[in-house]
Amino acid sequence: MAPKRNLLQHLELTRPVIQAPLAGGGDTPELVAAVCNAGALGFIGAAYLTPQQIIAAGRAVRALTGRRFGINLFAPQPIPETPTNPKAALERVAPFFRELGLPAPSPPAATGISFQEQLAAALETGAAVFSFTFGRLPESAIEAVKNRDMLLIGTATTVDEAIALEKTGIDAVVAQGSEAGGHRGTFAADFTSGMVGLISLVPQIVDAVHVPVVASGGIMDGRGIVAAMALGAIAVQMGTAFLTCSEAGIPEVYKDAILGAREDETRITRAFSGRPARGIVNCFMKEFDSDGASEAILPFPLQNALTRPLRMAAAKQGRAEFLSLWAGQGVRLARRQSAAELVARLANEIEATMSGLQSDTSKPNARTAHQQLSDYKV
Amino acid sequence: MAPKRNLLQHLELTRPVIQAPLAGGGDTPELVAAVCNAGALGFIGAAYLTPQQIIAAGRAVRALTGRRFGINLFAPQPIPETPTNPKAALERVAPFFRELGLPAPSPPAATGISFQEQLAAALETGAAVFSFTFGRLPESAIEAVKNRDMLLIGTATTVDEAIALEKTGIDAVVAQGSEAGGHRGTFAADFTSGMVGLISLVPQIVDAVHVPVVASGGIMDGRGIVAAMALGAIAVQMGTAFLTCSEAGIPEVYKDAILGAREDETRITRAFSGRPARGIVNCFMKEFDSDGASEAILPFPLQNALTRPLRMAAAKQGRAEFLSLWAGQGVRLARRQSAAELVARLANEIEATMSGLQSDTSKPNARTAHQQLSDYKV
Repeated sequence: MAPKRNLLQHLELTRPVIQAPLAGGGDTPELVAAVCNAGALGFIGAAYLTPQQIIAAGRAVRALTGRRFGINLFAPQPIPETPTNPKAALERVAPFFRELGLPAPSPPAATGISFQEQLAAALETGAAVFSFTFGRLPESAIEAVKNRDMLLIGTATTVDEAIALEKTGIDAVVAQGSEAGGHRGTFAADFTSGMVGLISLVPQIVDAVHVPVVASGGIMDGRGIVAAMALGAIAVQMGTAFLTCSEAGIPEVYKDAILGAREDETRITRAFSGRPARGIVNCFMKEFDSDGASEAILPFPLQNALTRPLRMAAAKQGRAEFLSLWAGQGVRLARRQSAAELVARLANEIEATMSGLQSDTSKPNARTAHQQLSDYKV
Repeated sequence: MAPKRNLLQHLELTRPVIQAPLAGGGDTPELVAAVCNAGALGFIGAAYLTPQQIIAAGRAVRALTGRRFGINLFAPQPIPETPTNPKAALERVAPFFRELGLPAPSPPAATGISFQEQLAAALETGAAVFSFTFGRLPESAIEAVKNRDMLLIGTATTVDEAIALEKTGIDAVVAQGSEAGGHRGTFAADFTSGMVGLISLVPQIVDAVHVPVVASGGIMDGRGIVAAMALGAIAVQMGTAFLTCSEAGIPEVYKDAILGAREDETRITRAFSGRPARGIVNCFMKEFDSDGASEAILPFPLQNALTRPLRMAAAKQGRAEFLSLWAGQGVRLARRQSAAELVARLANEIEATMSGLQSDTSKPNARTAHQQLSDYKV
């Protein structure tokens, strides 16, 4: 049997922190590299990139850091049949197109980007880790990743999904809690059943699999990281916290929306992409979700293609009310800072949380280090 | 300014664990007293009890323990108008009544139990803590509780709810995460917005209020307790974990359902009571929720009164498919044991989790105490 080695050690991480793949432009090479240089694991979210763009992204990251980084794709999905009549969906988005001065929407086509070609490009980036979501990988893809000595990480939203992924030979599993921003990774349960809170999900997955578990969803600071590790996770994956970093490539109005949002202002919607995802409630989401128009939403990724011109125009015009403002439920804890500042802050918070915990638990029934929190006036 | 004192210390708790009020018969005096005698805080869930029953419950608990215990009521709700035509709701439950051999359902009346009289009785029980959910307490009630030197604990599902409760003068707040079993405590947000995962909710509430925060929802073992404390909670409140204790007064088939359930098999429903609550999906829930019959559900507590004969008959006949199987998302971690065994196990797990955490975080990049979890084959 091969000797066992520690995952963080293998990746030369000094922080138990993974920057979540932020497909859609959030994870610029500058962000990915800054995260890596700070001792955490940066990730290229490559799901919407062409093979050429993937190669270029890898090259750009390597130019900025000599440290290990990861790359992420969506597991290949069954191609949805183009609805014979997408009229309802087109009519539904037409007023938003008009509002932004766009020509009337046209029937979307599947992107035409092939998973095989994306994967082939991803294997050439020099990434040390390959992660995926939305399902299992085909055996041939798993073999190709392993042949490159890349670590393979899947995404689960239920215990059964984690077990199914482990059987395919992954090296670690991301447990995505219901708090998480962006698309749900659910693939073997219905999306509602797959909405399990992280504090419940992590220990149940940890008990069920042998591979290391990475906790993801709603974690924004050192308190959340220590909590995740108490639950049995080896590391956390954080998306929203990195979106407001100065290096993140999302529009300023999107950063402002995160920094101004409350924990009860995000919601799961299919309106933008056809697949359930958590974002900050805005005009577009409200109008879509209020009138029960779910039949007027195309299946993923067609709805995503349909709304792309709208989201691109909204980004250009600085109109957050028509953007997909993916964000998790920890939004009140978001800060404007550089990635290096964020990772350093997390390290300090982990230490502070640990010393608070030690005095809380070592002296039961005594005054605690969290005095200001746990005390009250009598 | 009066000297500050620690909440756990004041209650003479040796474990940072509160047994959640289990209105509906779960929290027998035997359970409440066993929890208290083990060093945690037992609770009488008195919301459905008459004043006479409340007095009797308090007396029974006091006969079994000299330690402090708590009592819980629902905050007074606006009495819903009896629908002029409850026909749809009656017709909707009629087949289930027939199935259980019951006479046809009759239009329900509000229970007639007055909050004022329940409160007056609760104040006579000798409980050291008064907690409530579903809203704020009227000023007169707060004054009455404080005059008895009882600690006052409210329930919040959002930051704004916690702030609103703090303003009324509560001594601590329970943060109820989306993972929690049973009724949602949401009162100042819509129920969907109030579905915030605990790992996100706790730190955001901790940052916003000065009173101690108790974490509640999906916590089943020492890992969850340490996680909650890392997030800034002073203690946890656990319901589902106590429901499968030998002293718990729920039907055996309900215990079996919890012990056999998976984390993705609970769901929020209004079918049983008219108010959103999390329970294990069964035949009754499925049939109700599948056909979008939400108009055929009476407002709380009328729907609760309507379905009560059904649930009582189901309990008597041992038919879990018609019971309200309230449970949180941590169900896979439920065990059959006595309350004393559970509390002792939690204490051991807290210690084990802490020592694992200490070696994980004090030696970054070294082999960890969670070796079996965090290692992998290369």
